[in-house]
Amino acid sequence: MGAKGNLVVGQSGGPTAVINNSLVGVIHEAMEHAEIEGIYGMLHGIAGIMNQEFADLRRESPETLELLRYTPASALGTVRYKVTDDDYPRILQVFKAHNVRYFFYIGGNDSMDTTNKISQVAEREGYELHCIGVPKTVDNDLAMTDHCPGYGSAARFVAAAIRNTALDTEAMGDSGPLKLMEIMGRHAGWLVAATALARQADDDPPHLIYLPEHPVTLEKVIEDVRVVYERHGFCVAAVSEGVTGPEGKAIGDTAAPVEVDAFGHKALGGVVDTIADAIRESLGLRARMDKPGYLQRSFAELASPVDREEAYAVGRAAVRVAVKGETGKMVTLARQPGQGYVWETGLAPLSEVANKERKMPREYIDDDGNDVTPAFIEYARPLIGGPLLTYARLAKHPYPQR
Amino acid sequence: MGAKGNLVVGQSGGPTAVINNSLVGVIHEAMEHAEIEGIYGMLHGIAGIMNQEFADLRRESPETLELLRYTPASALGTVRYKVTDDDYPRILQVFKAHNVRYFFYIGGNDSMDTTNKISQVAEREGYELHCIGVPKTVDNDLAMTDHCPGYGSAARFVAAAIRNTALDTEAMGDSGPLKLMEIMGRHAGWLVAATALARQADDDPPHLIYLPEHPVTLEKVIEDVRVVYERHGFCVAAVSEGVTGPEGKAIGDTAAPVEVDAFGHKALGGVVDTIADAIRESLGLRARMDKPGYLQRSFAELASPVDREEAYAVGRAAVRVAVKGETGKMVTLARQPGQGYVWETGLAPLSEVANKERKMPREYIDDDGNDVTPAFIEYARPLIGGPLLTYARLAKHPYPQR
Repeated sequence: MGAKGNLVVGQSGGPTAVINNSLVGVIHEAMEHAEIEGIYGMLHGIAGIMNQEFADLRRESPETLELLRYTPASALGTVRYKVTDDDYPRILQVFKAHNVRYFFYIGGNDSMDTTNKISQVAEREGYELHCIGVPKTVDNDLAMTDHCPGYGSAARFVAAAIRNTALDTEAMGDSGPLKLMEIMGRHAGWLVAATALARQADDDPPHLIYLPEHPVTLEKVIEDVRVVYERHGFCVAAVSEGVTGPEGKAIGDTAAPVEVDAFGHKALGGVVDTIADAIRESLGLRARMDKPGYLQRSFAELASPVDREEAYAVGRAAVRVAVKGETGKMVTLARQPGQGYVWETGLAPLSEVANKERKMPREYIDDDGNDVTPAFIEYARPLIGGPLLTYARLAKHPYPQR
Repeated sequence: MGAKGNLVVGQSGGPTAVINNSLVGVIHEAMEHAEIEGIYGMLHGIAGIMNQEFADLRRESPETLELLRYTPASALGTVRYKVTDDDYPRILQVFKAHNVRYFFYIGGNDSMDTTNKISQVAEREGYELHCIGVPKTVDNDLAMTDHCPGYGSAARFVAAAIRNTALDTEAMGDSGPLKLMEIMGRHAGWLVAATALARQADDDPPHLIYLPEHPVTLEKVIEDVRVVYERHGFCVAAVSEGVTGPEGKAIGDTAAPVEVDAFGHKALGGVVDTIADAIRESLGLRARMDKPGYLQRSFAELASPVDREEAYAVGRAAVRVAVKGETGKMVTLARQPGQGYVWETGLAPLSEVANKERKMPREYIDDDGNDVTPAFIEYARPLIGGPLLTYARLAKHPYPQR
């Protein structure tokens, strides 16, 4: 059983449409355990610990917490700060000063590394501290979990978005038959792959899906677009921001200026422009672009109800296992085998998750490298929480010419 | 009273989330009038007449028509083709061959010009033809009408979008405090102005709104951003794709490659990139960008219920007045004075609408040129059809430091 003391919870990395559900899950569960005294919300992630900026979450009203379940982005504020080895003693010092015995970090693989290290430092110093990671990422790239809270909602948004923009493109006919949509995902194609959920029939858009896992040449992309355009009269492609050319080079070998964040991650962009330029040069056609950007991870109106529930559940589960004595673990989502979609929470060692990236497996990418397989559709479909709006299509029975 | 004969209806220009409502309105109303025999849908606008590509809309099922009211983009296909004087005789020839006596064109100011000219040519030749324009444009720039069907839904989308991305930006804190969203609207700022509907309190984002009606210098924008950032710790700006520098020059005087469509309209873009580059250079901060592009006019999930009803009503009204004998008119939307939002349809001469652009009046733009006025909010608020989702904000009562 866990010690009596205070709880600290924080949010890290890119926000999602449902990340506040995990926060509310932690708060709601914490309120049910006598071991937990104060519920501290760290403002802007780890920075909130370093600066002792903590919000008293017990004083938030039940109405606020309920509405927060429908409010996108990280209500506590988030951060992109790479914790250094020098920071851990300071973190532990603050935790000791506040008698913190429970620590929950809602984030991606960098945050899981931080959580793991805090757990290890506390153990080394013989300070009882229960550290549990709460998964979150629209990239869906955390190891050891079937999927990540935040992904289903972003997937629902991009599927709806590409279906809508594809109808617009189809309607334009020869006036604007090519559309490229740029989708988030630096190294993993889970989100761009989810655009395939827009399809109701096999030939429906998106006609082409380009993922970071499968490098392509500009020549291949142009040929793909040409073939689709000739067959359908229009072409809609979903392009991950992380698509590269062969051997990890930038697609088309353009040396666009690259920014690097605190974790050494490159800030990508421009892949879609490069492709559009190449299409114009080769096919003489203008490809229009949509770059929904941060809407992908914040569009609460399109949040997946399943995702919302799961995000809440992983928050609650984290507190439950911590109070039972666990530490150094991340809550996972597991899918039960059999008919229908049934999920439950599980646990994995943080060391198996920290700093790892789970990419799309080969069996989810089609042989040609420009689409997903039925196995992926089966995997992803339940996560968006029900069908998209039902749209109609005119039968267009022709009148005879005169 | 109108002659007995066939009806032709078409859609033109950029699609909207509710343009199919106007089509269904025309079909539903036409079915109630004995004067109207065949209901012809022209495929891809005026091209459908030239090529005699007509769909028999009487054969569409009631279920299809009902679902079409919730389906975005132009179900008949649209076109951007500038009708020339040489085309009108051919159009009239086709109409005569098919005994077409009613013509309805759902579109923007170019389409109103086309409709007007077809009406004039028929009149000159003594051929009875009732031509009525049905307004449609997310740009909201048609003259003689209080607002345009399609605008309310696009307005609802951009308001929701900027609110969501603003929450994301605020949550990022110092890790990404600047956001620019690029909004459609070549010459009129109605849509970018609608992002102001995201606000619940005065200080809420968007903090800055830049419209085509008010030229700005890069220096002014950078200073605006700096002031907002210093006050709030983050800054969210809505930027029209049509924003220019003084004297109609491109902002920042960059000579970006410009494409011109069949109407001589420039294909814009790049304004936001120019601003982002300037901010980076001057303030040393990276501004993140969202470019939702064609989602703004196709996102049916965010369609305004009011807009949907109005789009349907203008379609029905067009047929009603045509059957009564009108021609050369456009259906308008009029707002009744007094408490609450009450609308009705009206009529305006096509000659007063054709090829005209209604820009934002001065009293809707604030003195500093970077925001809208309360008068605009009062004008636009009812059009988005009800409030956005209710979001919560943590009170964040601080814990004392130790």
